[in-house]
Amino acid sequence: METKEKILIRPTIEVPAEDVKTDGAIGATIRKVITDKEGAPNFAMRLFELAPEGHTPAHRHDFEHEIYIIQGKGILQTEEESVPLKLGDAIFVPPNALHNFQNVGIAPFRFLCFVPLK
Amino acid sequence: METKEKILIRPTIEVPAEDVKTDGAIGATIRKVITDKEGAPNFAMRLFELAPEGHTPAHRHDFEHEIYIIQGKGILQTEEESVPLKLGDAIFVPPNALHNFQNVGIAPFRFLCFVPLK
Repeated sequence: METKEKILIRPTIEVPAEDVKTDGAIGATIRKVITDKEGAPNFAMRLFELAPEGHTPAHRHDFEHEIYIIQGKGILQTEEESVPLKLGDAIFVPPNALHNFQNVGIAPFRFLCFVPLK
Repeated sequence: METKEKILIRPTIEVPAEDVKTDGAIGATIRKVITDKEGAPNFAMRLFELAPEGHTPAHRHDFEHEIYIIQGKGILQTEEESVPLKLGDAIFVPPNALHNFQNVGIAPFRFLCFVPLK
């Protein structure tokens, strides 16, 4: 595949936003920016956007997240606590840790979320 | 290890910046934000900053990069062309593709760069 050999440059804003349909997600979209379709062999880049009052479901899974906040004001709810999040914060969610993200601002809350492909 | 089980929240600005000492790197620092030390099993998050006129070396390697531009004006030099980069651009550098990044603005040029750990 050509996409496996060429460098890809992709303005994230041009990637179509899809509604997150997981149970418990409200006002959430995902942009699948770099995935196996683009030739990524090991991990994927996705951009999530939560509308004001939007949130992802409280859930856990057997793979990790690596997250970077790019816009807005949010909170991360863990098993133990609720932590405010801002631009420039990085988050490591290890496998099986309960987590959900909520927008607590008046603008969109946006973050990158990387996951393993295998 | 406890760090493998707890969610980690880390303002990237608080991660120490280390000089990039690779031959051909000028005015470049790296912040190792999420690595195997933090319990990451598959891939690492690093934050690079290039000072004005700074650049990374033109190089290639057998693993991929997934990159996201978070600040400033840069260019990506590939084997074929020189492409301007701005906030919000995502880049997939497949294994073995020649690449280097340069700051062509008057402010720092900053990007996240993810690499596989294995």
